[in-house]
Amino acid sequence: MPQKNTQRRNRRGPRQAPIRQNHYRQVHNTLALAQILSTDEVAAIHEAALDVLEDLGIRVLLAEARQRFRQAGAMVDESEAMVRLDRAMVMHELQHAPKHIEVATVGIGRELHIGGNNLIFGPGAGCPNVTDLDRGRRPGTLQAFSDFIKLQQHFDIIHKLGPGVEPQDIPAHLRHYEMMRTQLTLSDKVPFIYSRGQHQVLDGFEMFRLGRGLSEEEFRAKPWVSTVINTNSPRQLDAPMSRGIIDFAAWNQLSVITPFCLSGAMAPITIAGALTLSHAEALAGIVLAQITHPGAPVVYGAFSSNVDMRSGAPVFGTPEHVKTNFAAGQLARYIGMPWRSGAGTAANATDIQGAYETQFSIWGAILGGANLIYHAAGWLEGGLSISYEKFITDIEILQMLAETMTPISCSPQEIAFDAIAAVEPGGHFFGAEHTLARYSTQFYEPLISDWSNYGQWHEAGARTTAQAANTMWKRTLEEFEPPPIDAALLEELDAFITRRTRDGGAAIGE
Amino acid sequence: MPQKNTQRRNRRGPRQAPIRQNHYRQVHNTLALAQILSTDEVAAIHEAALDVLEDLGIRVLLAEARQRFRQAGAMVDESEAMVRLDRAMVMHELQHAPKHIEVATVGIGRELHIGGNNLIFGPGAGCPNVTDLDRGRRPGTLQAFSDFIKLQQHFDIIHKLGPGVEPQDIPAHLRHYEMMRTQLTLSDKVPFIYSRGQHQVLDGFEMFRLGRGLSEEEFRAKPWVSTVINTNSPRQLDAPMSRGIIDFAAWNQLSVITPFCLSGAMAPITIAGALTLSHAEALAGIVLAQITHPGAPVVYGAFSSNVDMRSGAPVFGTPEHVKTNFAAGQLARYIGMPWRSGAGTAANATDIQGAYETQFSIWGAILGGANLIYHAAGWLEGGLSISYEKFITDIEILQMLAETMTPISCSPQEIAFDAIAAVEPGGHFFGAEHTLARYSTQFYEPLISDWSNYGQWHEAGARTTAQAANTMWKRTLEEFEPPPIDAALLEELDAFITRRTRDGGAAIGE
Repeated sequence: MPQKNTQRRNRRGPRQAPIRQNHYRQVHNTLALAQILSTDEVAAIHEAALDVLEDLGIRVLLAEARQRFRQAGAMVDESEAMVRLDRAMVMHELQHAPKHIEVATVGIGRELHIGGNNLIFGPGAGCPNVTDLDRGRRPGTLQAFSDFIKLQQHFDIIHKLGPGVEPQDIPAHLRHYEMMRTQLTLSDKVPFIYSRGQHQVLDGFEMFRLGRGLSEEEFRAKPWVSTVINTNSPRQLDAPMSRGIIDFAAWNQLSVITPFCLSGAMAPITIAGALTLSHAEALAGIVLAQITHPGAPVVYGAFSSNVDMRSGAPVFGTPEHVKTNFAAGQLARYIGMPWRSGAGTAANATDIQGAYETQFSIWGAILGGANLIYHAAGWLEGGLSISYEKFITDIEILQMLAETMTPISCSPQEIAFDAIAAVEPGGHFFGAEHTLARYSTQFYEPLISDWSNYGQWHEAGARTTAQAANTMWKRTLEEFEPPPIDAALLEELDAFITRRTRDGGAAIGE
Repeated sequence: MPQKNTQRRNRRGPRQAPIRQNHYRQVHNTLALAQILSTDEVAAIHEAALDVLEDLGIRVLLAEARQRFRQAGAMVDESEAMVRLDRAMVMHELQHAPKHIEVATVGIGRELHIGGNNLIFGPGAGCPNVTDLDRGRRPGTLQAFSDFIKLQQHFDIIHKLGPGVEPQDIPAHLRHYEMMRTQLTLSDKVPFIYSRGQHQVLDGFEMFRLGRGLSEEEFRAKPWVSTVINTNSPRQLDAPMSRGIIDFAAWNQLSVITPFCLSGAMAPITIAGALTLSHAEALAGIVLAQITHPGAPVVYGAFSSNVDMRSGAPVFGTPEHVKTNFAAGQLARYIGMPWRSGAGTAANATDIQGAYETQFSIWGAILGGANLIYHAAGWLEGGLSISYEKFITDIEILQMLAETMTPISCSPQEIAFDAIAAVEPGGHFFGAEHTLARYSTQFYEPLISDWSNYGQWHEAGARTTAQAANTMWKRTLEEFEPPPIDAALLEELDAFITRRTRDGGAAIGE
């Protein structure tokens, strides 16, 4: 289906149909990674993080999690819910964490290879509000949620699904049914499940199994779905998050353990300090997963930026954010784990600032060697809204990045001595045979970039980039065709949802 | 003076005065460079370029240049003005080209160190048109030219001057007087001189000497001024450009030899082919400089992008442009020379597309290890216009890049174990002593990025990034104070210009 969609997009796109077919399903990061820290400095941060876990500890609000930690040898102070992990235990458990994770899919080429130089983009996610040029900014709805799943499905450069916007028109205890049903019926990519308590998580697992026709054994055999675990920095793991780590680990599903340590707010103002705290919290989460189920698929997360010290508000794509990404990547590689970063911007509109901040944060993540880059398309306001237009302008950036990762061929035909010899000094290559044989496929064909000259552009109405993106998302939604889903499976899925809804749904909780 | 300007800018900027002082006068590229080619592939392109020079040759339209080539051992066919250079001669002359060049200035800290990992940004240059939000797009004038020299002078991150816009209201035979006088009176940075014939170039040298109070001997002792040499690709060096190479070399001044090889237009459509041609042409220019004056300060230039194959128009910041930058850097390092790249965009307005294309091209140049990055601020329409607002938005990007290059400190105070210990789980660091001691200087303070929340931003009029930039350039120009210039020197300079003007100026020519 996606292939078909791509062809349709190209046929009726704002530019003429390119013959070139792009392949963004599996992208590899071919760039040299930034080394902003010396090995000694990496080790110093790592050791300081171990000191934090050993000497200060982390507060864990779920009793079962504390119990698991205690059983694994941690010092637990029940009166303060504090867990202290000695470094030997942490390092022992870390050895069980996989270096490479494959998340399976039914969609061909949609599986996620996490590790090495694999580069996976996730969309802007978790936004309470949604915005577009026509309707302005407004609270998220299921309709908007569904639109963003369609957009995520359409563009191959978005490798896994994310909860673009919170469907606030659906009651919280039923929301996860609609979110999973939407993902299963509109997409064949890896879905997400929010860790909002065991009931919702197990509902999510069950819906996925039913919708994809998997036995419990098949489901448990490998990772199929994923969640994000955010710690409550500093040094605190709340009950739903602890629960999520345990449940995802127990069921062999992917959890991405991501402290959200903003320098100067929930973390020290210094980059090294924020990283020390973030690293400690990530290690604690990883240990909880590994003691629950050795070998559980977990990804090391680091989404540490800074705040605007005038307001305390988080900002993204700053130089400090970029440098933190560089260093976080070194920490991840030091412990030998794949890692997840995030892009972002604090801008309020689909505009220039959003474009440059997002691109800084993405380059930071890429040069930091991140395997998963979330919030890579559509995010505005540090995640308080997602924009239909910015989703498209970011897709353009991501596709350009993927193209940048491809090699240069240096065959004699590509070095083209003969073609150079065939054109006289001061001439041109437009009509050369060497050019004609390649012109329709040689270059990346942009989605929305307008390369007409000033006169043409002005006469055509001086369209802004955001307006071009507006046209593009509308066409994409209009022409969207979901991948096929077996009617019998859908019936089972719907029967489950109906039954669970009738039984009262599942409240957010532990 | 610039220090004073910086203080003033900060005092009355759109944000409150930061205490933090930024230092962008000397920037070093601390990133790991992209290796898109293997060493064998680099060698293959280099050898193919030598084949081009040896077997096909390059047309040189200036008789004196052909004569110099012949005297140095080249095969010259006068009937076709073709010069063929054997590879031994090219490699011999290359050895004389300096690996590091220092361009001197009277301005403190304004000197240019070219080579190693020094990173030097030049402004958008050579544009026939100028544009801003208030007045729209219009042909360049001396007033606009002067405005851009002021903007270039004001921001430390612009390290050398460039001819932002062509002052078309000044007759061509007198234009170079106004351009040099403007540079000398409004700036203490390294000026440029167009290679538009020997008369204009020598006038430029003389004006610089007079305005800076240098004897001819002092002037010749080291590089003070620079030019850009563009070949007439493919395989052609015209008379004014050949003349410029010879004159700048003879006077020990800097020439930046930059073929402008667009894949699919003046160069083969393949990246390897365009680089082969570009490399051959750059080598020919470098050889001409070295046979004129061994050790002459020349920089290897590569500004190779691609064209839109629908229209033939040059485009910039494309994936192909980025990859070409990666490879061009490898070629420059292969021959051991500092190199110059260029940023750019084909966008028609200060908008999202311009922001992302410019940033792609700059990241490409930086990860390619370019020492000089021209057109890094203000360029639009592939150089057909320069924008006051985009100049500012690009300055923001350049400053952010410079900040990204600075190290992370990992002292115990920065790792901040004690600060982490002092904040309880779930607490925050806003009021921590560790934070308070650093909050006013820890983070980069943006020029124009708006970090207010949506409500504040919307209430304040939902200002666009371009509007913020509009306010910033106006304030910068309004408050501009030129660096001091000795009245006696200015008098001599003006007397020279008056005399030369009375004598008829200097037409563009050989």
